[in-house]
Amino acid sequence: MNLDNKVSQLAKRRGFYFQSAEAYGGVAGFQTFGPQGAELKRNIEESWRDTFSRGLGHREIEGPTVMPEPVFEASGHLDGFDDMIIECPACGENIRADHLVEDSTGVEEAEGYSTEQIEGLIEEHGLVCPECNEHLSGVEVNDFNLMFKTSIGPGSGSTGYLRPETVQGIFTEFPRLKQYAHNQLPFGITQIGKAYRNEISPRKGLVRVREMTQAELDLFIDPEEDRPDISDVKDVELKLYPVNEQQSDDGEYIFATVEEAIEEDIVGVDWVAYYLGIAKKWYEQIGLDMDRFRFRQHQKGERAHYASDCWDAEADISGDDEEEEWLEISGFSYRGCYDLKKHGKHSDDKREFKIFKEYDEPVINEETKVDIDMGILGPEYGDKAGKIAEIVEREVRQAPSVAEDGPIFVHLDDEEYAIDSDVVSVSVDKVKKTGEEIIPEVVEPSFGVDRTVYSVLIHAYDEDIIDDENRKVLHLSNEVAPVEVAVFPLMDKEGLGEKAREIASSLRDLGLNVEYDDSGNIGKRYRRQDEIGTPFCVTVDYETLEDEPSTVTVRERDSTEQERIDIDELEVYFSSRL
Amino acid sequence: MNLDNKVSQLAKRRGFYFQSAEAYGGVAGFQTFGPQGAELKRNIEESWRDTFSRGLGHREIEGPTVMPEPVFEASGHLDGFDDMIIECPACGENIRADHLVEDSTGVEEAEGYSTEQIEGLIEEHGLVCPECNEHLSGVEVNDFNLMFKTSIGPGSGSTGYLRPETVQGIFTEFPRLKQYAHNQLPFGITQIGKAYRNEISPRKGLVRVREMTQAELDLFIDPEEDRPDISDVKDVELKLYPVNEQQSDDGEYIFATVEEAIEEDIVGVDWVAYYLGIAKKWYEQIGLDMDRFRFRQHQKGERAHYASDCWDAEADISGDDEEEEWLEISGFSYRGCYDLKKHGKHSDDKREFKIFKEYDEPVINEETKVDIDMGILGPEYGDKAGKIAEIVEREVRQAPSVAEDGPIFVHLDDEEYAIDSDVVSVSVDKVKKTGEEIIPEVVEPSFGVDRTVYSVLIHAYDEDIIDDENRKVLHLSNEVAPVEVAVFPLMDKEGLGEKAREIASSLRDLGLNVEYDDSGNIGKRYRRQDEIGTPFCVTVDYETLEDEPSTVTVRERDSTEQERIDIDELEVYFSSRL
Repeated sequence: MNLDNKVSQLAKRRGFYFQSAEAYGGVAGFQTFGPQGAELKRNIEESWRDTFSRGLGHREIEGPTVMPEPVFEASGHLDGFDDMIIECPACGENIRADHLVEDSTGVEEAEGYSTEQIEGLIEEHGLVCPECNEHLSGVEVNDFNLMFKTSIGPGSGSTGYLRPETVQGIFTEFPRLKQYAHNQLPFGITQIGKAYRNEISPRKGLVRVREMTQAELDLFIDPEEDRPDISDVKDVELKLYPVNEQQSDDGEYIFATVEEAIEEDIVGVDWVAYYLGIAKKWYEQIGLDMDRFRFRQHQKGERAHYASDCWDAEADISGDDEEEEWLEISGFSYRGCYDLKKHGKHSDDKREFKIFKEYDEPVINEETKVDIDMGILGPEYGDKAGKIAEIVEREVRQAPSVAEDGPIFVHLDDEEYAIDSDVVSVSVDKVKKTGEEIIPEVVEPSFGVDRTVYSVLIHAYDEDIIDDENRKVLHLSNEVAPVEVAVFPLMDKEGLGEKAREIASSLRDLGLNVEYDDSGNIGKRYRRQDEIGTPFCVTVDYETLEDEPSTVTVRERDSTEQERIDIDELEVYFSSRL
Repeated sequence: MNLDNKVSQLAKRRGFYFQSAEAYGGVAGFQTFGPQGAELKRNIEESWRDTFSRGLGHREIEGPTVMPEPVFEASGHLDGFDDMIIECPACGENIRADHLVEDSTGVEEAEGYSTEQIEGLIEEHGLVCPECNEHLSGVEVNDFNLMFKTSIGPGSGSTGYLRPETVQGIFTEFPRLKQYAHNQLPFGITQIGKAYRNEISPRKGLVRVREMTQAELDLFIDPEEDRPDISDVKDVELKLYPVNEQQSDDGEYIFATVEEAIEEDIVGVDWVAYYLGIAKKWYEQIGLDMDRFRFRQHQKGERAHYASDCWDAEADISGDDEEEEWLEISGFSYRGCYDLKKHGKHSDDKREFKIFKEYDEPVINEETKVDIDMGILGPEYGDKAGKIAEIVEREVRQAPSVAEDGPIFVHLDDEEYAIDSDVVSVSVDKVKKTGEEIIPEVVEPSFGVDRTVYSVLIHAYDEDIIDDENRKVLHLSNEVAPVEVAVFPLMDKEGLGEKAREIASSLRDLGLNVEYDDSGNIGKRYRRQDEIGTPFCVTVDYETLEDEPSTVTVRERDSTEQERIDIDELEVYFSSRL
């Protein structure tokens, strides 16, 4: 059984996640988080919020998941958010065409190819339907839009889509959000919420789902002025896999600190390097195994239409004896001004997608003002006066000196008119300009929460032998473990249960997530807690009632070592460890 | 300006909530929570979770928002989740027909009427289109299903709906959830998440939206055994508005404790009374004004198809001089076994929607076993032996004594056979039955989070005069205020800014939500914090730098009183107040 199967089985058995609506046969691509999984997921989200939102002084918003069609006309999703699909003419199976090509030929990154190129490759390699083996040569490959469509309101209604990414809710509200930021760049907006992709072939589990949770951050910057303060992350070491190494036959990882990555131009955008540093620290904190983690630069063909540079964080989700399998778990892209420009162009509020940038010092511009006395020109030249005045103004603007001594010669309809320079007065106004409107650019770290949950479980999963017994254990970090302390009475008898419940309740008052369990034998209860990754178990036994002062056994998950601790010391014990 | 307008304007100005996608003209029924609103909403959700999920030992899950059609065939939403709609033949406006009738006639609770009855009332009262005044007599009233529909997967795909309530995700997963509860009743499952109603006429703001957040709890009980332990809430006083008082001309509120409400049968279901008590305490804690709060029993016509009794919590959202306007903010219903029965019937997993209930003591049933010796009967009666044996067995079962002395007379095809009683042997087996399968019943407190946010803001809003200046202030409870402490330097100069940032950071380390602000004059900063409901402001001034030990000014929001506090005392000061 491979690692994915082991983790999925444990996930189902212990309430981390499972296929939704199984009683109805299930629908591929939708998973439900059970009690442990929902807690783990919330802990990861809360930790992300602490690091990427509050920790960086950014502001979090919550927008709707259903958004109107014009938003996606502007964002480009209506046209470009497609996967290539081929329908088997024999069995009717819908197949993702680029994956079919990748799986059956040596071609990589087929997503970047055109439908015609994919049709060509299918023909060339004589590819067949994976379901029924029908030959697919000559069958049309089409673009399939991955947005879920719905209708808003009664009657014909208006078309809406489930948002394919949370960030469109940030861009769309930029006109208001910039006010909350007092119109000052840089400012960051975050959002954690559902996003949807109507995948052609979802994969089982949390890896490729149709409904997911994203945690996204959009930093709006003035590209001319705003540079990251990297002091907190400059020495963080990054394991980088740039494009040139990926393309080289003996490509290797580059190990560089954030500072080196910027200085040596390994990561081209300093803001991206800065966020890679923060992300690296965060992933370590939530328990990803840094030996199975890397940052990979996007090749040109896989970059989204808006991104000028993009790096992914990837986790290796393979087991010990399996081939490496790298899963994208977040992306760090420099979107430039693509999105705000598009929304500015498509929306009713065009000017609002810019920000007014004040100059340090106002700029004084001189503006020449030319006045022509039509009271003189009119009576003298009749219906030609207007045109003559126009020409005079133009000439004076080009060379103000012509107005100094008269006359000014004007050619109109093959005739020459000599205009007395007295009719023209020239003045120079000084105009103060305090700033100008600019379109902010966007740096966007974007995290897939479901895949993060999955990678955390994959990296935490282990099997070992304790007291001659096989054990399955999740080495979850304390930061994210769904239960922090489990409290057991040896049995719920003779006051042991009361004492244990009392301890559980006082630990809960410390803000710890505590589970009380009195079912089955102690060994079974330890196994259960190991499988959900609980760092500590506290057992109340007969000694507890006899000892003076009262003590309990505290068992640590990873070492399975047990210590006898004074109950009054538990608060100190756990506050230094959790 | 009425209270709703005042709060909406403040909400927009200060980033609580606003119409989504305004740059695209907006779509009615969708709101975005800005930075303050998203924080307030999360605080309310977290407080709900503490009280109704962790606090009661229940388990929280997170299921998808898109669910397959068969779930809603089972739940009844596909047929019954409708509002009545009438389309104006002149201007094409879609109107919610029951609201039209309620607004223009004396009829209340028109939702409970049939489409024919509504057509009758429109005719009888000569009602017209509110948009164009066209007469609507004779125009058909139709049911309009309020679920958002979409298609899952490529090609014709399969039909899915955005869930109209979060609980269907709980019922659907009952087969697995009961395992996590070790098949023991009672157990409670909670879920906080998005739900959707494609309203015909959304109201502005958060009152009637198309996309909302619900916080729901389903308690699964054995109706014969499980009773609530009301000890924690028995003395909580409830303001109740039962059906009989609503129907009476001089109907009044009944004030009763939870215990009295149960004993005097004012609230018919003890579990419902128990949750009303918990909810009352919670609403008070998050800052609802208990003088503008009540529990109202549903009248028969408005009860959902599944509910045998239902009470709503309602908040009066009107301003001081306005007519009372009661808004439903949560519902407490006894759903019985309706949902699990339906899902059991419709799903592929029929047996799984029951729970095996073990008896305290196994029951021993006696089962009579009748053996007939076909070795004798066969040769003697040939092809009639089978039928004869059948009749003999039936007669012996009815009266075992006939087998004691022979013969047994059997009538078959107009003939009588005398069967020797020796061919029959009768024995009585004792069969041990350890339990039986039962369908749990469901008690369901269901909260609308958006409406809770709105009611909290409405009840917190106030205007007063401070130092001859008009002030707008939100008296938010400390439990939910988006910012707990704001820290200001008098100005960001001469070390004041550094000191203030240092204080802000050390208060953040205590887990407080802190905002640092150095823009504009102090008075303006106080006004801004008053408008977002920040309980305390800390100001660093020149005295701070001079005093030994160092002190700051702490200003309290409601009284606007200021005290001078030693910086080292701030931790103690706030931990006793926040």
